[in-house]
Amino acid sequence: MECCYWASSLMQLPFSKPFATNKIYYCPPKTFWRVHKSKRFISSRPLRCQKMYVPGFGEASPEAKAAMNLQNFFNYVAVRIVLAQLESYNPEAHEELMEFVSSHSLNNADEFLKQMMRQSPGLKTLALRILEVRSAYTKRDFEWENLKKLSFKMVDNANTKLMRDYVLETSHVEDAK
Amino acid sequence: MECCYWASSLMQLPFSKPFATNKIYYCPPKTFWRVHKSKRFISSRPLRCQKMYVPGFGEASPEAKAAMNLQNFFNYVAVRIVLAQLESYNPEAHEELMEFVSSHSLNNADEFLKQMMRQSPGLKTLALRILEVRSAYTKRDFEWENLKKLSFKMVDNANTKLMRDYVLETSHVEDAK
Repeated sequence: MECCYWASSLMQLPFSKPFATNKIYYCPPKTFWRVHKSKRFISSRPLRCQKMYVPGFGEASPEAKAAMNLQNFFNYVAVRIVLAQLESYNPEAHEELMEFVSSHSLNNADEFLKQMMRQSPGLKTLALRILEVRSAYTKRDFEWENLKKLSFKMVDNANTKLMRDYVLETSHVEDAK
Repeated sequence: MECCYWASSLMQLPFSKPFATNKIYYCPPKTFWRVHKSKRFISSRPLRCQKMYVPGFGEASPEAKAAMNLQNFFNYVAVRIVLAQLESYNPEAHEELMEFVSSHSLNNADEFLKQMMRQSPGLKTLALRILEVRSAYTKRDFEWENLKKLSFKMVDNANTKLMRDYVLETSHVEDAK
C-alpha cells in the first residue's frame, strides 16, 4: 500500500505560474478615522492588515489545500481503524480489505473508496463503514487544538535547531552535550 | 521544484507492522458507579470512552504526524511568500532563491533550509528570513479554525458525492441536473 497520499494534490501546485492573490483582507474603514461623539476630535489608528501575501495557490487558499490533504490522511486513518476493528471479530473481511488496500493506492482517498464500492458487495459495505469512520474521526476524535499546539512547538524547535547547528558548525565550538 | 513534501514522512508509516496503541484514554472510575450521599442508592452511568482505537502510528500520534507534514507545507508557503517579497524589491536575490528552489527538493523542509544556509552568504540570510516567515505564518496568519471548518465540510461533501454517485450508477437513474 502506498502511503504518500498527501502528495497527490500538492504535486499539482503551480509554482512557476504567475502569482495570484488567494485572499482579500478587508480592513473596515471605521478603525482608521474615528469621530468621537462627545469631544469631536479625530484620532488615527494604525491599519491592522498585517497578513502576508501568499501567492500561487490559484483559487484555493492554503487552508483549503491543507484541508484537502488532511482529508486523505483521515481516510488513511479510517482504513486503519476499520482494519483493527475487523481483525478481532471478522478475520475474513479483514483479509479481504487488507488485500484490497495492498493493491490500491491511498493517495487519492475518494478514488480509493469509489473503486472499493464497486469491487464486491463485501467491500462495498466496508467502504460505507470507512465513510462513516472518517467523518466521525474528523469531527470527534481528531484533536484539532493539539494539532495547532504541536505545529507551534515544532516550528520553534526546528528553527532553534537549525540555527544552533549552523552556529556550532561555523564557530567550531564543540557541542557540550 | 518538487512539491510533494507532505509525502516524505508519511511514506515511512509502518502499515504492515503489528498494531500499537498510540493513545490511552483514561476513564475515571467515579463515573461508573456513584454512591449518593443522602439517598445511598447506586446508579450506573455509561462509560464515556468513545474514541476509536487508531493503530499503527508507533510512538507518534496522528496529530503529531499531521503537524509534521503541515510543517513542510508551511515551509513551502514561507518560500513562496519570501519569493513574492523579493520579486518586487530585490530581483537578484529573487533569482538566486528561485535557482536554489528549482534544484532542491522541498519535501524535507529542514534539510532544504540546512543546505540553503550553507550554500552562500546571500542564501543564508534568505534562509533566516524563511525561518522567521514560517514561524510567523504558522502562528499568526494561518487560519486554524478555517482549516477545521473546511475539513468538516469536505468530508461531508465527499461522502455524499461518493454515495450519490454509487446510487445513481447502480439504480440506472439519469442524473436530473
